[in-house]
Amino acid sequence: MQKITDILKKIQPIDLAIVQKTQKRLDNLTKPLGSLGRLEELAKQISGITGEDSPTLKNKVIFTLAGDHGVTEEKVSPFPQEVTAQMVYNFLNGGAGINVLAKHVGARVVVADLGVACDLKPHPDLIIKKVNYGTKNMAKGPAMTHNEAIKAIEAGIEIFEENHKKGLNIAGTGDMGIGNTTPSSAITACLTKTLIEDITGRGAGLDDQGLQNKIRVIKKALEINKPNPEDTLDVLAKVGGFEIGGLMGIILAAAANKTPVVIDGFISGAAALLAYHLEPKTKEYMIASHCSVEKGHKIILDHIGLRSLFNLDLRLGEGTGAALGISLADASIKILTEMATFESAQVSNQE
Amino acid sequence: MQKITDILKKIQPIDLAIVQKTQKRLDNLTKPLGSLGRLEELAKQISGITGEDSPTLKNKVIFTLAGDHGVTEEKVSPFPQEVTAQMVYNFLNGGAGINVLAKHVGARVVVADLGVACDLKPHPDLIIKKVNYGTKNMAKGPAMTHNEAIKAIEAGIEIFEENHKKGLNIAGTGDMGIGNTTPSSAITACLTKTLIEDITGRGAGLDDQGLQNKIRVIKKALEINKPNPEDTLDVLAKVGGFEIGGLMGIILAAAANKTPVVIDGFISGAAALLAYHLEPKTKEYMIASHCSVEKGHKIILDHIGLRSLFNLDLRLGEGTGAALGISLADASIKILTEMATFESAQVSNQE
Repeated sequence: MQKITDILKKIQPIDLAIVQKTQKRLDNLTKPLGSLGRLEELAKQISGITGEDSPTLKNKVIFTLAGDHGVTEEKVSPFPQEVTAQMVYNFLNGGAGINVLAKHVGARVVVADLGVACDLKPHPDLIIKKVNYGTKNMAKGPAMTHNEAIKAIEAGIEIFEENHKKGLNIAGTGDMGIGNTTPSSAITACLTKTLIEDITGRGAGLDDQGLQNKIRVIKKALEINKPNPEDTLDVLAKVGGFEIGGLMGIILAAAANKTPVVIDGFISGAAALLAYHLEPKTKEYMIASHCSVEKGHKIILDHIGLRSLFNLDLRLGEGTGAALGISLADASIKILTEMATFESAQVSNQE
Repeated sequence: MQKITDILKKIQPIDLAIVQKTQKRLDNLTKPLGSLGRLEELAKQISGITGEDSPTLKNKVIFTLAGDHGVTEEKVSPFPQEVTAQMVYNFLNGGAGINVLAKHVGARVVVADLGVACDLKPHPDLIIKKVNYGTKNMAKGPAMTHNEAIKAIEAGIEIFEENHKKGLNIAGTGDMGIGNTTPSSAITACLTKTLIEDITGRGAGLDDQGLQNKIRVIKKALEINKPNPEDTLDVLAKVGGFEIGGLMGIILAAAANKTPVVIDGFISGAAALLAYHLEPKTKEYMIASHCSVEKGHKIILDHIGLRSLFNLDLRLGEGTGAALGISLADASIKILTEMATFESAQVSNQE
């Protein structure tokens, strides 16, 4: 718990003096005032986060954390549980969606096992921080113990900090875990106090019957476990997941280390929701990339008060939306630092 | 006119057999069916456009065409007319928004003078296809002659074809022209039969009084000139602009040469609207990047039946939104061609 306490102490509000300075600079660039819209907002946020008037986003890292879910016993996903491990190997071999999109935007993918249900073959690029062999079935009792919840978050903090030492200017969150829209829906229902029916989606592709079953399973999990919305760790422990706790740690550590963190879809959103409930200042460090097809994601974004950058009907996870968001963040900083001013380009300003 | 007639004959529907083949391939990639949403749609459209099952988008070109507008006499822009020429130099020196974003996405910017009001200093990267020294004031009579309209479109076709010979896999449209939201609004009102008040926006930053004046000017231009919505060239000639005609030529030539063309904001949208009215099949070759703050843009997109990829509150023009759209198109093709299949990655498919 010490690692979490220490990280929380380090999280400060972003630097508003730098934000103001950035606004002035943006207003001097050769374009009508404010005409680059949300790119300008992004540039201001990132300069405020980093505390630098000319930040660089050279080192881009997407953290794709994997974990399994005991609740898959309840048939909440159309894919078998072994796919989690298979996809980890796919990440390591560079064949997954996140590999392609991370490469496209110049980001490195960090793959970590937070709680896959089997022992994974060692690989030089695989970080093993296994909390346990998958969570327990939350429809029958808590997904994990209180200690495991702490361990998952602290693993995320450690993974972030190890990579931060190597150089890391912007982080993205990503997930892999068959069944993980189910705990994410339960977390969202508990913390935003929204009807389960209004949150729960088809995940990787459930049919109508599967969706009704998933809603029943989430209801049961919340009834049996009664997670306390005032106690974020209790929510993570009772209806969460190891990769979700890990992503929470990534987000907390990013905020503590003045690093912008680009949030992916629904599962990353659930981790962001938990991080926000533990420490509301984390919100200032978050950049919401896309708005997922999974409808609970919009509820999370509205609850935190984030506006996604785009909506491309994505619902893959892995950090794929975060990768595209990182590219926009990068573009915004290049606008700030590479464009000519009215004076330098000898362009007449508004009359 | 011969060049336009020839180009129109070359425009064919996109290849639906390839689209179907691409759908099958996308469905075999290691991700839930359809989970990359609009990226998958883009990949299908681009393979259909190019007629290739593994298209490449290596050579990316953004055409930023400049022209001046006689209607600036009526104080429809807060910027003085000389800014058009000044911004052309800014493009050539690499200091404008489009230079930064084009570089960010790996695209080349082609800058052309279609009708700037002064003689520009020669520059190795500046294409001169000046139709005239700015259009005439459309609030007092036609913006250009019928022949000038043809010349502007043909100049766009020539610029595209010269660059196509050098290698061009995807095109983006961009514009520069102080005052050019005014002709774009007039074109949109005429071709979509929408109230001028519902189309006209603040352009580069008009105040309330300026906006009311702009609306009056557009009304007057349409009343005096009576452009015939059934005759696209008549609309371009009476209330258009040289760079708008040039962009129309770029779009027609892209469609004729089986090249995806990413449409930027409102001014590019007006050119797309004209191209669509001249030949509706051009729509299949268009990718709408963003939806501009300039409200007439949404009316254009709805009229053609295009859905923009994102909305970042942009209103700069130059091709800045198109650049970001090109990056998404590129991402979609990398997904199609670089991701592993369930079989190749030994991942279990849906049960």
